[in-house]
Amino acid sequence: MKLVGYQHGARQQVGVLVGDETEILPLGVALPPGAALDLTSLIEQWDVLAGKLDLEQPGRLRLSDVTLTAPIPQPRRNVICVGRNYVEHAAEFGRSGYDATGANADAGHTPDAPVVFTKAPSTVIGHGVDIEPHTAVTSALDYEAELGVIIGRGGRGISRQQAMDHVWGYTIINDVTARDLQKNHKQWFLGKSLDTFCPMGPWAVTADEIGDGPLDLLCTVNGEVRQRASTADLIFDIPTIIETISRGMTLQPGDVIATGTPKGVGLGFDPPRFLQPGDVVEISISGLGTLRNTVGAA
Amino acid sequence: MKLVGYQHGARQQVGVLVGDETEILPLGVALPPGAALDLTSLIEQWDVLAGKLDLEQPGRLRLSDVTLTAPIPQPRRNVICVGRNYVEHAAEFGRSGYDATGANADAGHTPDAPVVFTKAPSTVIGHGVDIEPHTAVTSALDYEAELGVIIGRGGRGISRQQAMDHVWGYTIINDVTARDLQKNHKQWFLGKSLDTFCPMGPWAVTADEIGDGPLDLLCTVNGEVRQRASTADLIFDIPTIIETISRGMTLQPGDVIATGTPKGVGLGFDPPRFLQPGDVVEISISGLGTLRNTVGAA
Repeated sequence: MKLVGYQHGARQQVGVLVGDETEILPLGVALPPGAALDLTSLIEQWDVLAGKLDLEQPGRLRLSDVTLTAPIPQPRRNVICVGRNYVEHAAEFGRSGYDATGANADAGHTPDAPVVFTKAPSTVIGHGVDIEPHTAVTSALDYEAELGVIIGRGGRGISRQQAMDHVWGYTIINDVTARDLQKNHKQWFLGKSLDTFCPMGPWAVTADEIGDGPLDLLCTVNGEVRQRASTADLIFDIPTIIETISRGMTLQPGDVIATGTPKGVGLGFDPPRFLQPGDVVEISISGLGTLRNTVGAA
Repeated sequence: MKLVGYQHGARQQVGVLVGDETEILPLGVALPPGAALDLTSLIEQWDVLAGKLDLEQPGRLRLSDVTLTAPIPQPRRNVICVGRNYVEHAAEFGRSGYDATGANADAGHTPDAPVVFTKAPSTVIGHGVDIEPHTAVTSALDYEAELGVIIGRGGRGISRQQAMDHVWGYTIINDVTARDLQKNHKQWFLGKSLDTFCPMGPWAVTADEIGDGPLDLLCTVNGEVRQRASTADLIFDIPTIIETISRGMTLQPGDVIATGTPKGVGLGFDPPRFLQPGDVVEISISGLGTLRNTVGAA
């Protein structure tokens, strides 16, 4: 099942994608009155509400008549991200000189433990919304195509073996980054958290529809392939990430975890190919659709 | 004016500290009905609501009859923190070997730009609540006494000159840290975000009551002085921090910024003096009271 965030009139809403992905059935009509109107609330009560979704109700909207938003436009806390999680990307990042993550000897190497940082929840934007270029703040705007995991049942001390039972579904994340800020401030939060730096979407897809197999990821800029990878090549796989994070931090329903980006980001080129106003970034992942965002005017 | 978070019965509430700091007047009776019941909502409407607070209303509670919570127990996004922001602490941290922030040559030096990271909002606990020792996850539990700035009016592109107009008030933060996780995961988020790792309080104090002068900070563990400093010694002062963060990230009312810790944390001793179950950490800052938390049983 695919869940879509959208604006219709002035209201932020969520619906189920139906009719061969051309129509939306609003949660407000698919569910009993007052059950859940945003995706995090739906996920919190998923065990009860999933069976109550009635997709035969009248009241469908055409997808082309609404403006998409992120499926979780205002996460309740930061988007959790894993860095340096594909071998060849860890190497290109190390070579670039932009990595202040580890000591010199460590730069470019595969990390011994997941590198976990976050993006402010206020960075999230939907499919089709412009990425601000922030030209007054950065001259090194970069893209990072990533598989996003959406947590269903929360918990602490979740083992690798149990981890996939805590995954509600998936979405696509563009972990947009100001490389100069990422480097200069040592910790990555600021370079990752400028307004509009977290395109998410085009929708969220439940885990049962995706399965446990590896997913193919493709990222293009202005139609040119930049990143092509399989999530089979993650250094720390999804169960390991969930086990690591949940050891001392209780995961919550609706938490979004971006699992890392493969090689091919702008800083990996010599000279770097950073994003410019007008550039179009498209990210496709098997079964999750295509997330497209344009870099806005300066 | 001092604003206190508390639980009375099952409800999380906020009130004004009155009666020589022995009583609380709940916001629900001090303000017109429906105006604001949590501190972030009050701060959002402060320009309108501050003048409507009627502290002569009946309905005071005794401070001793309620359980204190943090003044902002569920921040809308992560607590923003500045690292390595006192010269002598940057040096002790560099010497300790726990700093994976910069390249080797940089370790222990004064940073060129503020090092900005965050703690998950789910880490916040109030005065008197136990810090979990997380003994299964860390063997290097440490304290960090810090001045917390609470943002009033939000905004982007706030200049140093305007910055203090955006400060609503202050509180005390204990930026509890698992040093081993902070080091092993390179980025600090996980080591800073275990459950209960952000004691905040005992209350929030408005900026007009504190003024712009430097504040004295004192931190004791089991009554022994560990940290004693003045906020005059911040490397990056509050206006610089606000200017830096707000350049590309819109600050929001109710955002909390922890400004960094001075020397004297546990890792600064040789051998390190990390926290153990039963230890009592008390942090006092001029005009802000004393935040006391005990490390709970393993």
